[in-house]
Amino acid sequence: MTAAFRQNGPRPPDSAVRQEDLRDLNLEVVFQRILGADSPISRTELATATGLTRPTITRIAEELLAGRLITEKGVTHNGRAGRPRVGLTLSDRGPAGLGLDIRADGLAACVVDLTGTVRHLTFAPMPYTGRDAGAVLGELTRMGREAIEAVMAKELTVVTATLAVPGPVDGGMVRIAPALGWRDVDAGTFLADLGVPCAVDNEANLAALGELYAGGDPLGSFLYVSGGLGIGAGIVLDGTLMRGARGWSGELGHVTVESEGAACACGSRGCLETYASTGAILGALPGATNRTDAPGGAGGIFEGINPDSVITTRAEAADPAALAALDRAGSALGIALSGAVNVLDVGTVLLGGSFALLSSWLIDSVRAEIDRRVVTASWSPVTVRPTLLGPDAAVIGAALTSIDQIRRRPTTWLARQS
Amino acid sequence: MTAAFRQNGPRPPDSAVRQEDLRDLNLEVVFQRILGADSPISRTELATATGLTRPTITRIAEELLAGRLITEKGVTHNGRAGRPRVGLTLSDRGPAGLGLDIRADGLAACVVDLTGTVRHLTFAPMPYTGRDAGAVLGELTRMGREAIEAVMAKELTVVTATLAVPGPVDGGMVRIAPALGWRDVDAGTFLADLGVPCAVDNEANLAALGELYAGGDPLGSFLYVSGGLGIGAGIVLDGTLMRGARGWSGELGHVTVESEGAACACGSRGCLETYASTGAILGALPGATNRTDAPGGAGGIFEGINPDSVITTRAEAADPAALAALDRAGSALGIALSGAVNVLDVGTVLLGGSFALLSSWLIDSVRAEIDRRVVTASWSPVTVRPTLLGPDAAVIGAALTSIDQIRRRPTTWLARQS
Repeated sequence: MTAAFRQNGPRPPDSAVRQEDLRDLNLEVVFQRILGADSPISRTELATATGLTRPTITRIAEELLAGRLITEKGVTHNGRAGRPRVGLTLSDRGPAGLGLDIRADGLAACVVDLTGTVRHLTFAPMPYTGRDAGAVLGELTRMGREAIEAVMAKELTVVTATLAVPGPVDGGMVRIAPALGWRDVDAGTFLADLGVPCAVDNEANLAALGELYAGGDPLGSFLYVSGGLGIGAGIVLDGTLMRGARGWSGELGHVTVESEGAACACGSRGCLETYASTGAILGALPGATNRTDAPGGAGGIFEGINPDSVITTRAEAADPAALAALDRAGSALGIALSGAVNVLDVGTVLLGGSFALLSSWLIDSVRAEIDRRVVTASWSPVTVRPTLLGPDAAVIGAALTSIDQIRRRPTTWLARQS
Repeated sequence: MTAAFRQNGPRPPDSAVRQEDLRDLNLEVVFQRILGADSPISRTELATATGLTRPTITRIAEELLAGRLITEKGVTHNGRAGRPRVGLTLSDRGPAGLGLDIRADGLAACVVDLTGTVRHLTFAPMPYTGRDAGAVLGELTRMGREAIEAVMAKELTVVTATLAVPGPVDGGMVRIAPALGWRDVDAGTFLADLGVPCAVDNEANLAALGELYAGGDPLGSFLYVSGGLGIGAGIVLDGTLMRGARGWSGELGHVTVESEGAACACGSRGCLETYASTGAILGALPGATNRTDAPGGAGGIFEGINPDSVITTRAEAADPAALAALDRAGSALGIALSGAVNVLDVGTVLLGGSFALLSSWLIDSVRAEIDRRVVTASWSPVTVRPTLLGPDAAVIGAALTSIDQIRRRPTTWLARQS
């Protein structure tokens, strides 16, 4: 019974800390200081900041330099002319992470280095038909291998890859992705030919991590909601992605907006996707769709149409049907988001994917519902704004996730090198 | 920009680990082993489990014994007759935690010792009128002081107290508690006379912690929902309470069930509380209420009536109006919970407070909505069941929270003693 007695906050280590563990721990402490610094940091500054001796810092710096985790950069001490001082900073020629993404309009691949800088980004448009899992994942494997080779020329070594998919994931298995017409697709196995280990993750989760990084607020809390053929959310609390008990959090697209609303592809009624997916918005525009029997129901597939551009064009022309559909979508999104904010308590909502593109027509109704329905909004208003990274958020987030393990545990990379 | 690059998982320490820190770290490692053991554990077993030397274990055990954190108990090694061996186990005569709770039907105080055992529990019925904050908190202070004195006779020292309130809390300030008619009540200041530091927290959060403890599953993930004059939820993910960005998570009572439903006291429409609070259920029973103008609207105050017993009596007599109201409440609860489960991803829902008492009439409609509306339920069904601790969950959870800081950081208590 006592074992269950656990709460928030730091935990002591599980086993005794011994002399030999100190070496790795202190290397990681020094690495985190270099990682967290705004500019190159000198060995002397590191000694002061960590409380370690100068010889210890020197030894650790040698290890990190040999492992291509850091590099030396000369800087002047105070911005005036003077003797340049040697600083240590993250290397842009060591380990790197690969991200892959299956978007509504195509496939994307991205490589980031240890500093979090995007070093390679490619996009291949994909027709809305022909989403056979084997073909899509084969093409992604090809793009991934090309990316790995391209960055080798920049002295970068891709360590791991992460694939973003629009649906809940179980290990390497995509359980359901209505926007692709996929169910129980073992994406992990398809991607074995990449040549590096590849994780599979939900695109909204990865996009939320991309936004967290781009936002520059390490302790940020927000809900990122991605619009498109499907709707998903990624939840960040105090700088940490909240994945839920089994990694399936953020299924905002299937939150009920009206209990006896239209039938949804998921089997329920009145889900947010039946109001606010691009399929649902397009379906409300006379003559805009050429298929109504598409797989995925309201979140279906539209041959040869880019839903976002059709909707945007009509809205810009002040087409009354388009404006009404967007208003209805915005209200439904606001109702679903209000429920999520009441339950989660986040002060910021980021509109991503199609919702970012359509935000000028959606955001007022979203804000109106949130102001009215979030119980804490009367004394602490919720901020609603479009995302920073736009459609690249998920693939950048995927690449950052791939490199993050090295940033968190540089010793695992060093052990591989020796 | 790099500082924002953070994700899930263990983090390295912030500063260098030095020789002198090892002493405290290892004391905590040993204490956690004793805390986690099912039965008294010998010094030899501790040495094996932690990798520390026998003299180090002996020194740490002396410190913990002197600080009344642990005690010695003789046990036989293998259940057969034999030489008794001396084991170390948590002390039931050292520090203790006080919990206080403002319930729908009265006030409660509880003390738990370091082992998590309830050593004192008192309850004072409170009429549904006269909920003046000063009077309520004055009475609670009196009950708390009485509890502190009562356990002194058992050689227990109350270290801190925690008050459970039915609403969002900001530091010691209760922002809004419609069930009590409170807004911006500085409960922390009112409780200064207790003589020990007193934290103020949301009752559903504290009840969820109580259930986590009682459930015995250290890595459990669940949503606890508390019914009553108000409705609140506590969210536990992997054994950790998810408080949200500002501590206001779990406002399930104000999740929209029907966007144009009845007006709620919070200013919105169609909130779960307008269907499933005891006030709303009672309001649907002809002749059951004697006040309709009560503060708090649908979650209002009913003079001289215990809402739960009125509803239960009518439901047991198969009163059609009562059964219909409960069915409606169960469906609304199921719809709101489905949204929360879709967003959070938890596999278990616990019905607490009035929902536990009424669960035989509610649970079928709750389950039906969840099965239909949770997108992952088709391959991973959600468990819905009444709570284990019943109405005492929050006050026990509050007391456990009070003692938890000593369980997590025994060195803070030891520093106080010397």
